[in-house]
Order: sequence, then C-alpha cells, then structure tokens
Amino acid sequence: MKVNGMPMRTIWVSSDGQAVDIIDQTKLPFEFETVRLETVEEAAHAIFDMLVRGAPLIGATAAYGMALAMKSDPSDANLDHAYKVLFEARPTAVNLRWAIDEQKSILAPLSPEARFEAAWNRAREIADEDVAICSAIGDHGKDLIAAAFEKAGKSRPVNVLTHCNAGWLATVDWGTAIAPIYKAHEAGIPVHVWVDETRPRNQGASLTAWELGQHGIPHTVIVDNAGGHLMQHGKVDLCIVGTDRTTRTGDVCNKIGTYLKALAAHDNHVPFYVALPGPTIDWTLDDGFKIPIEERDETEVTWMNGMTSSGEVVGVRIAADGSKGGNPAFDVTPSRMVSKLITERGVCEASETGLRSLYPEQPEAWK
Amino acid sequence: MKVNGMPMRTIWVSSDGQAVDIIDQTKLPFEFETVRLETVEEAAHAIFDMLVRGAPLIGATAAYGMALAMKSDPSDANLDHAYKVLFEARPTAVNLRWAIDEQKSILAPLSPEARFEAAWNRAREIADEDVAICSAIGDHGKDLIAAAFEKAGKSRPVNVLTHCNAGWLATVDWGTAIAPIYKAHEAGIPVHVWVDETRPRNQGASLTAWELGQHGIPHTVIVDNAGGHLMQHGKVDLCIVGTDRTTRTGDVCNKIGTYLKALAAHDNHVPFYVALPGPTIDWTLDDGFKIPIEERDETEVTWMNGMTSSGEVVGVRIAADGSKGGNPAFDVTPSRMVSKLITERGVCEASETGLRSLYPEQPEAWK
Repeated sequence: MKVNGMPMRTIWVSSDGQAVDIIDQTKLPFEFETVRLETVEEAAHAIFDMLVRGAPLIGATAAYGMALAMKSDPSDANLDHAYKVLFEARPTAVNLRWAIDEQKSILAPLSPEARFEAAWNRAREIADEDVAICSAIGDHGKDLIAAAFEKAGKSRPVNVLTHCNAGWLATVDWGTAIAPIYKAHEAGIPVHVWVDETRPRNQGASLTAWELGQHGIPHTVIVDNAGGHLMQHGKVDLCIVGTDRTTRTGDVCNKIGTYLKALAAHDNHVPFYVALPGPTIDWTLDDGFKIPIEERDETEVTWMNGMTSSGEVVGVRIAADGSKGGNPAFDVTPSRMVSKLITERGVCEASETGLRSLYPEQPEAWK
Repeated sequence: MKVNGMPMRTIWVSSDGQAVDIIDQTKLPFEFETVRLETVEEAAHAIFDMLVRGAPLIGATAAYGMALAMKSDPSDANLDHAYKVLFEARPTAVNLRWAIDEQKSILAPLSPEARFEAAWNRAREIADEDVAICSAIGDHGKDLIAAAFEKAGKSRPVNVLTHCNAGWLATVDWGTAIAPIYKAHEAGIPVHVWVDETRPRNQGASLTAWELGQHGIPHTVIVDNAGGHLMQHGKVDLCIVGTDRTTRTGDVCNKIGTYLKALAAHDNHVPFYVALPGPTIDWTLDDGFKIPIEERDETEVTWMNGMTSSGEVVGVRIAADGSKGGNPAFDVTPSRMVSKLITERGVCEASETGLRSLYPEQPEAWK
C-alpha cells in the first residue's frame, strides 16, 4: 500500500538486487525508516527484534534470509547454519518454520552453485503468494463492505471497526482484516475506520492508524473501551478483525479484547467478520479454549512508549508504583459470535461445515 | 482509608482549625502531596483544576469553600460572591450545586457573625454524611463478597473486577464500588482485585491501583481488553463498578467501557453489581439512552501521561501523527445486564420496582 503517496510492500528486493529492504516497524508510527538486510544474520535480527512482525511477513523475511545466506556461502554447512540462525530468531513462529523448511527442502538437493538463484526465486514466490492470498481476502471482504454501503442507501461512508493491526504491515501487502477496506477504497466505496488503540501494545493507534493515514483512508483512533458505545448508537456498520489461529470449528483466537467487541457486535446486531488466510486455520483443534494463551511481560501494561512534545521517544510508567500488571496476550471468541469468516477462497460460516466447504481437501479425521 | 499505613480522608480540617487539607489527586499516583485550602478561591481552584474529583468529594469541597468564604468576610455580598466562584468552577457538577445551594439556604437567614460557625458545621456534616452513605454501601456490598467467598469454599481469595475509580479518592472516604472491598478486607475475607486501567484517563491504573496498594489490598492492573478473557476462564467471581447516573429503571451510565464488561459478565454468568449512593439515581429518567454522552478532547486518547525512568512526569503522543481520536466519556449499561444495585439502603434488582422498594418516598409520577 502507499507510504507518502508511493506504493510499497513491507519487504522488497533492493534496487541493486543484492539484498532486501524492510520497514523498521519498531520505529513506527514516530519515524519511517527502511533497513537493508544483506546477510542471514541481519534477517534473523530483524525478526528477533521485531523490525518485522506479523506471521506472513516473518515467513517472507525468513525465506529471503535463507537466500541471503546462499549468496555469501552456498555450502551445506552454511545452509544448516542459516536454518538454525533463523529458527532461533523466533522458535514459535509457524510461518517462519514453514518458510525455512520449504527453502531447505528445495535447496538441499541442489548443487551449491544453483542454490542462490533457486532460494531467491522461491523467496520472491513466497512473498508474492502472500500478496495474492491477502488480495483475494480483500476482494471477498470488499463485497461485504459494498453490501453495507447499499444497505446505508449509499448515503454516507461505511463505518468499519477493527482491532489491533491486521493490515499490510503484518503481511507483505494488503493485510488481512484491512485488505477489504483498501479494496473498497480502491473501488470508490467511502469507508471510515474506527481504530481500536489495542492496549497493551497499541498496535491499533500506532500501526493501523499509521498505515490507514498513509494510504489516505479516513479513520478515528478510539480507546478499546469505546466500541460498545459506538455500536449501541449505530455508528458501526460492521467489524473486521484478523486472527492468529482459528479452529476448524470457527473459534477465533486473536489479540486480547477481540472477544469484548464480538460480544458488543452480537448484542447490537452488528456483523462481526474475521479475515484469515487458510494457513491460520488449525484443523487439529475443535475447541478454541484448548489454545494456550500466552501471558506476556507485565511492563507492557504498566509502561507505555510515546513521543514527547520535543520529539523524543520515551517509555513512561503509567500505573501506580508497586502495582503489578496482568497481561494475557490473546483471547478466544466463540464461533457463535462470529458472523462470517473471510478467507482467500471466499466467505463462509464460522463452523466446521463452513470451513470444509471452502477447504474440501482437508481430511475428515483429526486426532 | 490508609495512606502509608495512616487512616486518611480525601478532605479534612487542618490541624489549626483554620483551613481544610486535600490530597492533590492530579499528582497521583506519582507523587502524594496534600494542599491546604484557606480561601474560597483556593477551593474553587482545587475543583476547577481537578485536584479533587468525584461527585461526593467535589460537593464536600464546595461546602467547605463556602465556610472558608464566611471566615474571611461573612457579608451578604461575599456569600453571593462565594456561591458564584464555586458554581463556576464546575457548572455541571450536581453535587457541587446541591452543596452550595444547601449552604446558601442555611447561611442567608443568619446574621453575618453566626455564618462562619454554621457553614463550617454544615460542611463537616456533609462530609460525614457522605462517609456514612459510602460505609453503608460497603456493608451491604460486603455481604455479596462474603457470599462469593462461601461459594468458593473459602478456599481462595474472592476475585473482584472493577472499572475506573469509584474508590475512596472519589468520595470523602470508603468509596462506592470499592467500599465493599474495603469492608470485606476489614472482615477478614481475602480479596484480590482486577483493576481495569480504564483508558483514556487511566483512573484505574493510577487512582484505584494506588489506593488499593496504600491500603494493602492485593490487586493486579489489567488492560481494559483483558476482563472478558479472565471471566471466560473463571478468574472473576464478581464485578463491582460505580455510576455517574442511574435511571429509575436501573440503566447505568458510567465510565466508557463499563458496558463491555457487563456484556462479558452476562455471557459468563458472573454477577455484575453497580454501587451507588441514592442521590445518583435520576428519578426523572426511564431510559438510559436519553442521557447525553459527553465527547471529550481527543488528546486524552492520542496522548498519555506517565513517569519516565528518571522520575520526570511527561505527556507522550501514542497515536500515529495526523490520526484523530474519538473520545466518548461514558456509556450506558442496560439494566438487563446488571445483576443487582448496591445502595446505602441495601441491595435491590436493577429495575424501577427494585429501586422503589428501597426509596418508597419517591413520588410515583414523573414527567
């Protein structure tokens, strides 16, 4: 999507073709800075220090990281080394693991001389495949926004509420939950987005607001407390959120607070949509409450980063001294509160029947 | 309640009997500082600049402000002047208006020489009456916590979730929503409090956490997004919140985000209690959605105050530059989601029948 009016991805091949460039997302929204990655170590560092975040973008970065390693030394030893360095950058990231497994299985049988080009091409493909998936999610979701615009008599912008950042910054381009908004905007449908700030890490106020602003989409940042009130007063036409993991039965694990918005949407008859790429469906799970919820560091709750009026980015303590914080990172929204799932293959009910209708190749039996 | 182990109120007569002292709540939780008010102008300033906040405490401060005016100049002209100065400090505060009307009606018929003592005595009474009301709310609410302790087999602390600050800092002592917690603690019932940070003004993380910590009540600060998840996992036994205004039909207007917690409580069969002094019942209203909701300044959303690691209190911008904020200050929780109301006269259903059973003196007919 656009930054300063220019189309961009979150990762791209450098103009000299010898490296990849990324946006340093740790600096957003206060500074826009790109970083050149020339080695596998730099790619691993970008993942570890969260210069890149979002499962699809981490996967693409890892795939390019393998290619960068093959450029400097395409030996078997360095192939193993690159795999290890990248894996250890974020051992729990499923897309990262998938991307480096994929690269290794392609590269290992090849002669060292053939490895760099093959790795580079596969990395490009992985990035392009992610763009295609997100673009398709956007196309399908756009139809739901278009329907809301019709329903409102085409008399005013469609008000969409979103939580956290499931935008293009979390992917290579388009995003998941935000892709339908960009597609609607492209199609000339006026959209206004209510952006949940999304405490504790504030990805809404910082990342989602930043990317919408850069692309020219009207939006308003609200505290996470405000969405229910807005829905009670007819100020939200629909909600779209992303997901980290969705069970085959349609339970949605996503950023903490998603469940509260789903409850409010349900109570006020506001459609609540979840956008997801097929790979985030966990076909082995039939109950979202079996998903273990990570408890993160309490300082994310008791401290906050921001920019002072003199332009300095600092951390400040915001809770009473001596009070401890609790910080569950995700929650689970039961499928009964999800109106529809939006995937790259189309829109379906949030149920096993619904998902299987789009992914019929999935085996019937699971442990 | 206690500060540094010593019992305190939020407003008290100075040791020399010539002024009143208050806690400067704008400095909390980072600094504990008391301020001496010697004149009506100083009392008005304390109200205007929110050194004191919370309807009951504002009322008591205004009552003392009238007395301070009578000390320096008990003339009719100064009585009118004091009324005007205090009224203009916060023209929409119902308790303030009530307190200065009350003082004026008592003082106007008296000779100037008699006014100071009468005003001073009535101010003390108003403060004491507030303490009595809050203490009674605490006693009635304590029984609900005791029942939850029984239900848990007395095997672990009772987990109470609260939103915003309806603690002793908002009143003269005890608080409203927090009073039952202090009373339970006094009665030896172990309680742990989940404190919603309560964006955008963070009164939970700053004020509620501070007062609970000072009094020695175990508590954990959580982001406003977390409560639903905790309720899904059985980690909340009951919720207690305060209210700015409750209709005679039991709809509850309170700090933005209250409704979302009520929805989660309802969905998880967690009792959701609202503590309120009788005077906050609006007998003229039969529908909470008739209450106009104040839209506050967007900088409360896009900026945050906190203390740097070097001990400096600063404001920082937390949202993307150029993104605007939306800031509705309150929301309305429909009575159907409120388990019980806790008043100074006892506990009742959140309904007109329930409230009339406790306040039978209220006339049947309202406009």
